[in-house]
Amino acid sequence: MNEKKGNLLVGQSGGPTAVINNSLVGVIQEAMEHEEIGGIYGMVHGIAGVLNEEFADLRKESSETLETLRNTPASALGTVRYKVTDADYERLLEVFMAYDVRYFFYIGGNDSMDTTHKIAQLALSRGYDLHAIGVPKTVDNDLAVTDHCPGFGSAARFVATAIRDTGYDTWAMGDSSPIKLMEIMGRNAGWLTAATALAKETPDDPPHLIYLPERGVSVQQIIDDARYWYEKLGYCVIAVSEGLKDDKGEDMGAGRGDVDAFGHVLKGGVVDYLDGVLREALGARLRYDKPGYLQRSFATLQSPVDREEAYQVGRLAVRAAVGGDTDKMVAIIRRPGSEYAVDYELAALDRAANVEHFVPAEYINAQGNGVTEAFLDYCRPLIGGPLPRYARLAMHPLPKRTE
Amino acid sequence: MNEKKGNLLVGQSGGPTAVINNSLVGVIQEAMEHEEIGGIYGMVHGIAGVLNEEFADLRKESSETLETLRNTPASALGTVRYKVTDADYERLLEVFMAYDVRYFFYIGGNDSMDTTHKIAQLALSRGYDLHAIGVPKTVDNDLAVTDHCPGFGSAARFVATAIRDTGYDTWAMGDSSPIKLMEIMGRNAGWLTAATALAKETPDDPPHLIYLPERGVSVQQIIDDARYWYEKLGYCVIAVSEGLKDDKGEDMGAGRGDVDAFGHVLKGGVVDYLDGVLREALGARLRYDKPGYLQRSFATLQSPVDREEAYQVGRLAVRAAVGGDTDKMVAIIRRPGSEYAVDYELAALDRAANVEHFVPAEYINAQGNGVTEAFLDYCRPLIGGPLPRYARLAMHPLPKRTE
Repeated sequence: MNEKKGNLLVGQSGGPTAVINNSLVGVIQEAMEHEEIGGIYGMVHGIAGVLNEEFADLRKESSETLETLRNTPASALGTVRYKVTDADYERLLEVFMAYDVRYFFYIGGNDSMDTTHKIAQLALSRGYDLHAIGVPKTVDNDLAVTDHCPGFGSAARFVATAIRDTGYDTWAMGDSSPIKLMEIMGRNAGWLTAATALAKETPDDPPHLIYLPERGVSVQQIIDDARYWYEKLGYCVIAVSEGLKDDKGEDMGAGRGDVDAFGHVLKGGVVDYLDGVLREALGARLRYDKPGYLQRSFATLQSPVDREEAYQVGRLAVRAAVGGDTDKMVAIIRRPGSEYAVDYELAALDRAANVEHFVPAEYINAQGNGVTEAFLDYCRPLIGGPLPRYARLAMHPLPKRTE
Repeated sequence: MNEKKGNLLVGQSGGPTAVINNSLVGVIQEAMEHEEIGGIYGMVHGIAGVLNEEFADLRKESSETLETLRNTPASALGTVRYKVTDADYERLLEVFMAYDVRYFFYIGGNDSMDTTHKIAQLALSRGYDLHAIGVPKTVDNDLAVTDHCPGFGSAARFVATAIRDTGYDTWAMGDSSPIKLMEIMGRNAGWLTAATALAKETPDDPPHLIYLPERGVSVQQIIDDARYWYEKLGYCVIAVSEGLKDDKGEDMGAGRGDVDAFGHVLKGGVVDYLDGVLREALGARLRYDKPGYLQRSFATLQSPVDREEAYQVGRLAVRAAVGGDTDKMVAIIRRPGSEYAVDYELAALDRAANVEHFVPAEYINAQGNGVTEAFLDYCRPLIGGPLPRYARLAMHPLPKRTE
């Protein structure tokens, strides 16, 4: 059992998160405990690092670096957005064999799970003994099979915090600029936009309106919804998914038309569009925030739950591979009951590869402008504890003088 | 000495900050220790609350609310952007007299200092015994007389954190989207944009380029600067002030043309403009973040130094007023020496009213695309301690195989 079976290769892919390095460190630290594993190699910029044979020797990293990486956002090995071609797979397997890679871990989303699945299958078909395991990661939370995805909880904590803080600001500004839009990441899945609802302590707290790509909504409804809250409270805070669709299923706002390497249209522009529409309709000043990549990289707001789970899925992946598994993804399964607890299981990679998991209908309210209690119950534990307590003045009015 | 001399009125004005409620709580808690002070009244939405006679009875707030307010962003009394007219001043004094207001504290920026100054002068000219003190506040850090402004340190901590985190993300993305712009608040003064430099630990760390409104810069220089870093490191992170000017002194980018109540043009659009220019010139994908109002409201990143100073300027203002001062602003004076320490002094309000304090030439580098060590020495203590430690992998390359 003390014989080295081969080398380990690990990479990070797709959009970074605030906790993705926890998965990397989990893989490395677990690997160091298994004598079967020889070299621990990192792919520099994901699959591109394999194609270019650019590898980092991770056994040479200090334990202090590894511990500090757990606090460090974004993908420490570098990441990539590159659509692997059929010809590439042959080349990938050839490189794996040349470097005697027997354990392969790819930390990523749907596309990366597909890549890992195809490599696992190719190795099987060629009789090459490879243990390939997908490690889930995405702030979009759109992977199937797993209850939720590492990276999502921290991004959710950030957007809830951000919209609460900008909501207090918007209340304070009153008539000066009473309408606030915040554009939230999520091309097709609205999980992160939905998570802004965790900012609410009372029904009148921001965000007052939440629009997800899963539920098309007419521009007229958005105007009417915003007018309702503006007239009721004197201000209105709106969370809008970057991938919002109108009631005909068309993207709202023009976008910039960019397309990424996978052919996904890069969205954007929905708040610019709604900005014009709502100013005109409500006759009120409007401001918007586009926190952009801060949503996935703001390490100050790592969710402790998310951080730990990201670490554990890395460790679990190595244990599964050493135990003989391949072509699997580590999935997080929530235990039933009111107390939050999870188990880690292995799922067939083809169940997650290229499948997008959308916010289900029961998590979206009837009007399509907010979320349900069931969603809040789902999401609340993932952000790792309540947001810090804030206060509002009671504002006991002074009696007006009578002359 | 135990006789009540009259009532106290306090208000918050202009853009909120992450620590402005500390000044409010400082005023209230100090006032409670002075028997000369009768009612403690809050202006609801600043000067508008006086004109409309909308006051909150702050003695009725619980001590728990006051303590929790110190963690709560934005202006708890509500704020306002309203240009006080000459006719308004007569009305303001009349309301002050009707409510027997003898102590007046206005927490705000240049415009608010002007308002406070004019009220103080009008009371003097009418022989009405009023003690009016300005309490400095602005994330723009553009008040004269004071070394720095409460609110700035926390906003500086936020932007430094934000650009560091998005910088790690941009490095990780590599070729996929190697250019990142972040638009930073500051219509005319670049203090906050300059503060992003605190994210740098080594010369090659983001932000690689910092452009302030104080120093016009040609579009060609920005292209050349960005190309230099992109070619050197494979990526480039740029902090751009929303009020950036070109080398002819014209606003860069069209902006939306909005004008606020004071006639200030509301900027914006500079990153949209540079986005197009840099994509075209560099042939590289570009992304931008517009954290917008999060810069001034992100309470998670209150600087402990800023928070305490914001509290103390509130307390000091009350002590000055009770001691007989009027028409003064509390100023923060930094003691000489390498250890950070401050004194609080009183300055004539007309020295701060309507004066904008810009980033001086010695804080901007020769190329106009970064800051100097002198600026870093000035700014570093204000964010209240170093940013959390991050790590990068050493990335010892694995030898390439030789075939």
